[in-house]
Amino acid sequence: MASSTFSYEKLRAFAYDIFISMGCSHAHATTATEVLLSADLRGIDSHGLARLSGYVRLWEAKRINSQPDLKIVHESPSTAVVDGDSGLGLVVAPWAMEIAISKATVCGTGWVAVKNSNHFGIAGKHAMMALPHDMIGMAMTNASPLVAPTFALERLLGTNPICVAIPAGEQPPFVADFATTTAANGKLEILQRKKQEAPLGWIQQKDGSPSSNPDELKAGGALLPLGSDREHGSHKGFCLGAWVDIFSAVLSGANYGPWVPPFVSFLAPPADPVGSGIGHFFGAMRVDAFRPANEFKHHMDNWISRFRSAKTIEGQPGLVIPGDPEREYEQSRMAEGIPLDPNVVEDLARLGKARGVAF
Amino acid sequence: MASSTFSYEKLRAFAYDIFISMGCSHAHATTATEVLLSADLRGIDSHGLARLSGYVRLWEAKRINSQPDLKIVHESPSTAVVDGDSGLGLVVAPWAMEIAISKATVCGTGWVAVKNSNHFGIAGKHAMMALPHDMIGMAMTNASPLVAPTFALERLLGTNPICVAIPAGEQPPFVADFATTTAANGKLEILQRKKQEAPLGWIQQKDGSPSSNPDELKAGGALLPLGSDREHGSHKGFCLGAWVDIFSAVLSGANYGPWVPPFVSFLAPPADPVGSGIGHFFGAMRVDAFRPANEFKHHMDNWISRFRSAKTIEGQPGLVIPGDPEREYEQSRMAEGIPLDPNVVEDLARLGKARGVAF
Repeated sequence: MASSTFSYEKLRAFAYDIFISMGCSHAHATTATEVLLSADLRGIDSHGLARLSGYVRLWEAKRINSQPDLKIVHESPSTAVVDGDSGLGLVVAPWAMEIAISKATVCGTGWVAVKNSNHFGIAGKHAMMALPHDMIGMAMTNASPLVAPTFALERLLGTNPICVAIPAGEQPPFVADFATTTAANGKLEILQRKKQEAPLGWIQQKDGSPSSNPDELKAGGALLPLGSDREHGSHKGFCLGAWVDIFSAVLSGANYGPWVPPFVSFLAPPADPVGSGIGHFFGAMRVDAFRPANEFKHHMDNWISRFRSAKTIEGQPGLVIPGDPEREYEQSRMAEGIPLDPNVVEDLARLGKARGVAF
Repeated sequence: MASSTFSYEKLRAFAYDIFISMGCSHAHATTATEVLLSADLRGIDSHGLARLSGYVRLWEAKRINSQPDLKIVHESPSTAVVDGDSGLGLVVAPWAMEIAISKATVCGTGWVAVKNSNHFGIAGKHAMMALPHDMIGMAMTNASPLVAPTFALERLLGTNPICVAIPAGEQPPFVADFATTTAANGKLEILQRKKQEAPLGWIQQKDGSPSSNPDELKAGGALLPLGSDREHGSHKGFCLGAWVDIFSAVLSGANYGPWVPPFVSFLAPPADPVGSGIGHFFGAMRVDAFRPANEFKHHMDNWISRFRSAKTIEGQPGLVIPGDPEREYEQSRMAEGIPLDPNVVEDLARLGKARGVAF
């Protein structure tokens, strides 16, 4: 069955009403909707409306608090720790990123670690909040353990994404937003749906041997860190995932590593938590805390133009500047609508019915 | 020919005398020696004494200034930009990292971008300066272009390493120090010496096709970003290398991308520089700017112990905590001496003779 296309406005209204039906305030429902839909707009379909019913189920299971009391619990001139009070990560993350931005306004940079939160959507949306302020933005989060470090049998880390968003002048910004695994879980889900094989190097079986079966994860297998195997640098991908985990959760007081609670309501959180909820980490750096903003932007334009015009291998596409594909998606989907997978449409229709919201 | 082993003290005295013979002050020669030899101690042989004659040749070519006037040229409460005055990166980097540490003492975090510098040795040495202060340390640097981004034919980035050093309590610190390529250039050099093939995914030929010939780089080929190819996430490795390049050089005013001057005296720097020298970026974050240091260290101990004891794949070694192998090298080499490759010994003997320093 082909996917159907919906206008941004229609989907926005639906998601907003769902969040309101959970008891979110107008402000929180607006923010949560905007963050969630930014994933659909930017072509990261796994992180958008496809997850809406998952958030609702976690709220039904009392694992998400729709009326959180967000608080700074520790701070210094350039840092803060935020307690997300089990709120939607979609709401907690922008609140924390705003603090990073105000700290940066005063101090040059601002760094905020968050505990007691939930899945925050796409990292890029939060990091990009820094751009209109002529700041570099950073966002990272830990996530439920699906990844086996190099040589390990156990799933000890999440796909732990990082985003770095850097403003330019005439050129669009540089926005690198990526999971620290060879392939994000969303890509496996697409292969599962299409019943296609995965390339070797994305996953391992329960016994640690290589696999091309995208269903292996459900059978106790694991995703692999960026680099795939030791010979191709998977220990570096492990370093990246570990770095994100420690900044997000050990600095903030959230759960880390194998203790990170699962994002699905049918799996119970570990019985012996080492912290509160999941953790995020945000940063904002004022460009003019380093050099005049115009100078910086001029050189970013030069950097981007030079890389964009690089000679490429015959038969291959041009060099892709990080952020270009997502921006192109955003422009076309805002204008032409957002295609949703039939399974997602069915899921949203069911959700709407259950919560008394017209889809 | 087998490698010979030398005591740390002997090598230290030799390197110090060489730096003094270049006109370095006692303080600078001491620092440069300690930083350079930390690579040999920590088992990163490509970045230690093997490079000493290269630094000297660049000084002879007047591309390294042995008596630099190090200056802060721009700052905010939590940031600074340092002009390295063409000094040895081995000296400029610790000077800049000290500034990051003092800013963090006051502000919670400190971030220093450096321009007009040269090769700084191993990133780990600088990042680890933060550890005794109960701070997290970060260090990154750009480097001469040897890496082709995904789909590109041209070498546009260096191996651009990142180090993140995180203190623990009873456990040794977490120290992740890695090039953002599938394999560091030093690993290729080892294969060249042994006349062995490289795994596919490390390098590409001049025309962009895959290669296992470690000499390909000399024939116009390129190293590949972490991930090796698009299917295995090399676009993420490119993001990492680009991030390091922009933080190190576009923030500071150094040369970036293909404009980074080569580290060898027989290759001229580009005729159209876009900045000064090469660039670095350093960070220090006070752990107690986020939560009490004892609490943080307790959880780092728990993180490290849990990962260290992970179940591993049959026949594979245990999970490696970042920093463990280098620390073990450091302990054994400090006690038992540092093995040097016969070519390096010969090179040092020649260097000593030329500079009137006994080896």
